[in-house]
Amino acid sequence: MSVLFGNNKIRFLDTTLRDGEQTPGVSLTPEQKLKIAEELSLIGVDVIEAGSAIASDGEREALRLISDAGFKAEICTYSRAKKEDIDLAVKCGADSVHLVVPVSDLHITKKLGKNRDEVYKMAMDAVSYAKERGLIVELSGEDASRADQTFLSELFRDGVSAGADRLCFCDTVGLLTPERVSEMIPPLVLAPLSIHCHNDLGLALSNTISALKAGASCAHTTINGMGERAGNTPFEEVVMVLEKLYNYDTGIDKKRIYSLSTLVSQLTKVPLATNKPIVGSMAFTHESGIHAHGLLRDASTYEPMSPETVGRKRRIVLGKHSGTASVQSALNELGYSPNDKQLAEIVARVKQVGDKGRKVTDADVMAIADSVMLLECKPVISLRQFTVVSGSNAIPTASATMVVNGQKVTGAATGTGPVDATINVLSQSVAMLGDIKLEEYHVDAITGGADAMVDVTVKLRKDGRVITSRGARTDIVEASVEAVLAGMNRLLRNENENRG
Amino acid sequence: MSVLFGNNKIRFLDTTLRDGEQTPGVSLTPEQKLKIAEELSLIGVDVIEAGSAIASDGEREALRLISDAGFKAEICTYSRAKKEDIDLAVKCGADSVHLVVPVSDLHITKKLGKNRDEVYKMAMDAVSYAKERGLIVELSGEDASRADQTFLSELFRDGVSAGADRLCFCDTVGLLTPERVSEMIPPLVLAPLSIHCHNDLGLALSNTISALKAGASCAHTTINGMGERAGNTPFEEVVMVLEKLYNYDTGIDKKRIYSLSTLVSQLTKVPLATNKPIVGSMAFTHESGIHAHGLLRDASTYEPMSPETVGRKRRIVLGKHSGTASVQSALNELGYSPNDKQLAEIVARVKQVGDKGRKVTDADVMAIADSVMLLECKPVISLRQFTVVSGSNAIPTASATMVVNGQKVTGAATGTGPVDATINVLSQSVAMLGDIKLEEYHVDAITGGADAMVDVTVKLRKDGRVITSRGARTDIVEASVEAVLAGMNRLLRNENENRG
Repeated sequence: MSVLFGNNKIRFLDTTLRDGEQTPGVSLTPEQKLKIAEELSLIGVDVIEAGSAIASDGEREALRLISDAGFKAEICTYSRAKKEDIDLAVKCGADSVHLVVPVSDLHITKKLGKNRDEVYKMAMDAVSYAKERGLIVELSGEDASRADQTFLSELFRDGVSAGADRLCFCDTVGLLTPERVSEMIPPLVLAPLSIHCHNDLGLALSNTISALKAGASCAHTTINGMGERAGNTPFEEVVMVLEKLYNYDTGIDKKRIYSLSTLVSQLTKVPLATNKPIVGSMAFTHESGIHAHGLLRDASTYEPMSPETVGRKRRIVLGKHSGTASVQSALNELGYSPNDKQLAEIVARVKQVGDKGRKVTDADVMAIADSVMLLECKPVISLRQFTVVSGSNAIPTASATMVVNGQKVTGAATGTGPVDATINVLSQSVAMLGDIKLEEYHVDAITGGADAMVDVTVKLRKDGRVITSRGARTDIVEASVEAVLAGMNRLLRNENENRG
Repeated sequence: MSVLFGNNKIRFLDTTLRDGEQTPGVSLTPEQKLKIAEELSLIGVDVIEAGSAIASDGEREALRLISDAGFKAEICTYSRAKKEDIDLAVKCGADSVHLVVPVSDLHITKKLGKNRDEVYKMAMDAVSYAKERGLIVELSGEDASRADQTFLSELFRDGVSAGADRLCFCDTVGLLTPERVSEMIPPLVLAPLSIHCHNDLGLALSNTISALKAGASCAHTTINGMGERAGNTPFEEVVMVLEKLYNYDTGIDKKRIYSLSTLVSQLTKVPLATNKPIVGSMAFTHESGIHAHGLLRDASTYEPMSPETVGRKRRIVLGKHSGTASVQSALNELGYSPNDKQLAEIVARVKQVGDKGRKVTDADVMAIADSVMLLECKPVISLRQFTVVSGSNAIPTASATMVVNGQKVTGAATGTGPVDATINVLSQSVAMLGDIKLEEYHVDAITGGADAMVDVTVKLRKDGRVITSRGARTDIVEASVEAVLAGMNRLLRNENENRG
């Protein structure tokens, strides 16, 4: 264990369900909160700040559910220095309160309209009141980074005398630097101290690490760095920085990081930046030719850690920077064995597709390889026509005429909308050839006018094989049909035929 | 000016058009690169790394266009230590080369299959060759953080003797900590030194600042932190950390930050994280009641800087955490003056909408206010039916029957797809009431099945007024109709009527 952190066992208080859920537009049901809490406890966080009991009926229900679930982690609720908040914490069965008191003069006067003495008294009364009711108390200074540090340390000292079990320093607006943190923290370690950072200027992670080095023993974090404005300190980054760069064993079950991140992103409907460290879709994705080349020889050349460490897989994608090594690797996976001359031509054509700014899907690569290698790929199915009708008083209905193995088949199907109806009729028409499942249907966000280009990617599965394909049109139905047909045709080829 | 950075004038080399554009799936046309380069020069970066001349014809065309444009910034191209790369740099009119040489044994042996002596010789030859051809040379050590530092400093020292004007330290896989940076940089400041960081573990920003404090004088950055995997050091974060937290005047035209960020995101089609510091959509957005309350009294309580500093505006949105103050502020903007009792009821109902996890749009707030304040809001238009037909051989065609001011109107229109056709027929049917423009049409990414919920938000404008509204259905056409109708009805009310 690194000496940097003294004898401290670093703890994690996760506030995804409180600070994270305060993100504008985010709202979780009690059941969803329970599911996330369960995963947080399993991954190994020490404290779960599960909500703010005063906020709403839904929050209280969630808190009760989570408190009753018997998780290993301590269950905490946010609380102002008010009896009503503390009473609700007790009523909901929380183990502890994150008791937040504004400590900067700016917050004391402008937000509360009070003075330091009044806030001091509120804090002491609240600590005593909460302790009398059997709660663990973490006394927290809001906007501590802009507070008079003498006032703050007196408040902390007397708070501990009044019974506070732990303290917390909040950089509420993300204004600290690692240097200032390392000066401010040591005089405040009057009891186990937490550090709670915001990422407004991009330094939440560094400030948190700096505080842990200066004597703080608990990091407040959120999954994916969720939270208001620029968010809070990201859990996954603190864990991996400690483990990978400071050689410190956090005790966190790192292999669960990616699935927990995905769960939170899906339930909160907050998409991650594609280049979010550790958990973003691109974090372990490689395209550029020269890099992929080094990577195929030794992954550590262009990877900070093995993706499996955090429960992920490496992805090599093709595009305009793709070199020979990565295209060959993709072709082999798809069952092609081109000779060198063919390979060079395939690489050139893949670059052309990429040069137009397009994603290069499996179906694209296969189409290029077939053409270069002069493989006959007579499409198994072709579309003669489709028609779809929908409206306010109509059940969305589609018909399609397809030629399947030389036979003309016309069918019709309904769906929840015109896209769904059309995909249903296509699936139905090829049912006799095997069971093709639509595993994923994804449309990139459409912004601009109602006539903007729509980009549809689908993932289809037949038996063990999976193929991605894509369509791009101004008409969402046509783009969907294009993607599905391209994928189906690839899947319906004889899987065992030799390609080269 | 801060003493932290000595007498250095900190310079910025922007590599959005090279490292940023290497992001898998990103591809810019030469014209788009020229546009971004123009904005980079205007905002005040010192050097623009405009591409990699060896990569493709498109790259060379872009480089030539940018070199010929006469921008104030120095124009640079990435170059390997090879004559062919340097020749192309000259041919394209670049001022300088970012001459990259792998320096770690891992990269030297595993990627290049060479030894240190060979790499040393390649580097010296390339520096001399480039200098003879009149180029400014920045000699760059790839994977410098894992290199033998003695070998690296010898290579740098002799590179400077051979004519290199500047040096660069690359933390290629993002493995440094600020502490290690502060130890490694000082012995390498043998000429003006650049720092080039990657964000794999979230520390690119801190490592860059640490290097600037330790003697580096130029930061390699990308707009929005674009780049492979977890990306590069974000320009906007370095600038604002230096300005805001280290009180250092960068000379950058900060008011252009947001528009440049938006331009890059739009042209590269890489969406930003909503909570990206400084430039994310949520960075200056506030919902939570208690925060918005403090904010309305004094913005600095919950803002790290004024949004205008970086060319943005504050946004207060409503949702389940909204308090009275923020709802009242929104209502006033929309022209409502409820009494206290009405306001309390409106707040409660806004929270209910938010509790379901929904965005609360202008149209939602107005509908709630009308209902609570018993204002009659007879819809000006109502829809009796719409029908839309599209297909592979059909021009998407929609008909609609609407009641407009009590008059039944039936019309038909075509479009580029079923959504476009349907919105066209709605617009056409209300044309007699004034000119309503669809300013923005946005669909959140659709993931799941083809029957997933589709969330459509529109922004409509009539004369000076703008209204956002929303629809959510499994059918994208119905969701679009719902959003447009709700917005139209709000806009068509008498704008001057007194509400309360």
